[in-house]
Amino acid sequence: MKLAMVQDKIVPLEKLNSAYLDRGTFFGDGVYEVVRSYNGRIFALNEHLQRLSNGLKAIDITGVNIEEVRDRVIKAFETAAIENAGIYFHITRGSALREHNCDNSIRPNFFLTITPLADQKIIKQNGIKVATHPDWRWKRCDIKSLNLLPNVLAKQAAAKKGCDEAILVKDDGAITEGASSAFFAVIDGKLRTTPQSTDILPSITRKYVLKAARNIGLQVLHESVTPAEAAGADELFIAVTTKDIVAVVKLDDTEIGDGGYGVYTKKIQEQFRLFTS
Amino acid sequence: MKLAMVQDKIVPLEKLNSAYLDRGTFFGDGVYEVVRSYNGRIFALNEHLQRLSNGLKAIDITGVNIEEVRDRVIKAFETAAIENAGIYFHITRGSALREHNCDNSIRPNFFLTITPLADQKIIKQNGIKVATHPDWRWKRCDIKSLNLLPNVLAKQAAAKKGCDEAILVKDDGAITEGASSAFFAVIDGKLRTTPQSTDILPSITRKYVLKAARNIGLQVLHESVTPAEAAGADELFIAVTTKDIVAVVKLDDTEIGDGGYGVYTKKIQEQFRLFTS
Repeated sequence: MKLAMVQDKIVPLEKLNSAYLDRGTFFGDGVYEVVRSYNGRIFALNEHLQRLSNGLKAIDITGVNIEEVRDRVIKAFETAAIENAGIYFHITRGSALREHNCDNSIRPNFFLTITPLADQKIIKQNGIKVATHPDWRWKRCDIKSLNLLPNVLAKQAAAKKGCDEAILVKDDGAITEGASSAFFAVIDGKLRTTPQSTDILPSITRKYVLKAARNIGLQVLHESVTPAEAAGADELFIAVTTKDIVAVVKLDDTEIGDGGYGVYTKKIQEQFRLFTS
Repeated sequence: MKLAMVQDKIVPLEKLNSAYLDRGTFFGDGVYEVVRSYNGRIFALNEHLQRLSNGLKAIDITGVNIEEVRDRVIKAFETAAIENAGIYFHITRGSALREHNCDNSIRPNFFLTITPLADQKIIKQNGIKVATHPDWRWKRCDIKSLNLLPNVLAKQAAAKKGCDEAILVKDDGAITEGASSAFFAVIDGKLRTTPQSTDILPSITRKYVLKAARNIGLQVLHESVTPAEAAGADELFIAVTTKDIVAVVKLDDTEIGDGGYGVYTKKIQEQFRLFTS
């Protein structure tokens, strides 16, 4: 008799909730997005849906209607009626008995949660400490996939050091990005950030940061920095959907700038607020 | 109101089956094993449980009693009463709202399936064709984690070429292993295989292959091969729990040996059968 076991309970396979057979769990075979709302309006949903669409294409998940995804996100958001919401959603290749390869009869799974965004006041006010960690991720970090164990491990290691984010460093000594954020340095009056490639996520918040930099006349260099360069930077900050722009006040053992928000970080944060209001 | 959405159905978060909130799905935050039985006896369960235990330690999932896992596997196996069964089980860090970091109150999830092993007669008889693919995996391939999207993508690409397995090649030109198997070459009367490191899984079938090689007096070189070396090999084969030893008869466009089972591959297969009978 084919069967499944959930914790210590035996379940006939045919009675099992298909959530247990999700290829998202067996393989991380799916892509996800996190969007947020500001005061009752979802920010940059189009861009997030476009990235989702690109990700589905990159891993060859077919049969997803992006307009239907948009409708679901909006319907859920309207039902939840949370002003400042964090909206997580993923699409996996579907549910089936575990085999690496699967036939085309499988249909994608959609899953979403909406919750109030945690109040980031203290973090936003004081900035965060970060710890460097080797970048153990795969070679297609441009795909926002469910394969996030290296990110989890890096963030756990950072948390153990009292840090809020891990800054990932490649074997060649270059910083790629944060474990769940984009990373920026202000050095000699210029904004430095890792160039877009398969090494980093095409971050949407990053795109708005670059737009903000242009608006305030801050020159951008698409060049990665090393931890040593970052430690000597005038300002460091991360950018992520759920927190937008947050100053990095300490990198490993080094205090950055005067240990608070730098001039440019503040200006970019202000510009960013204009986009979201 | 906090809520979830499964396909197009809105569900209050508190009524959601916790399987949807498994960190295995959100992050691939777990480890798994595949064991099999031969004629009603599970093969090498101890070794698989030891590897599971090592994996849990490596990703810092605590609170799992391995003897309890053993009891569950055996109970499920006895209930299923399948002579030649494929037994899959994983342990994830647990279920919680999606946050990279989670507190210690979370409790691990155990999940298992038992199904009859597919009849591999034709594959076993004729051998398989394989296709090389860049090794896109993360830097801790020694951990048998649920982050398997690169493996899935490589196997999909291989299947599109009519191949049964993808052979992964690192940036430096060395073959690491198959996307779901260990990889061996017989060159100049010696067995070559990638040395154990963080680049490859500590495969249990591989261990038994090395033992079989010793038993037949075949010298083993722990040195990886390049695709060019593999194409010129006298024999190639893969080793994997669900199929044990299978000859590789074609690598990309090159037929290997005389296109069937080589002498050493046959001998190792025979030795292997002694371990499992």
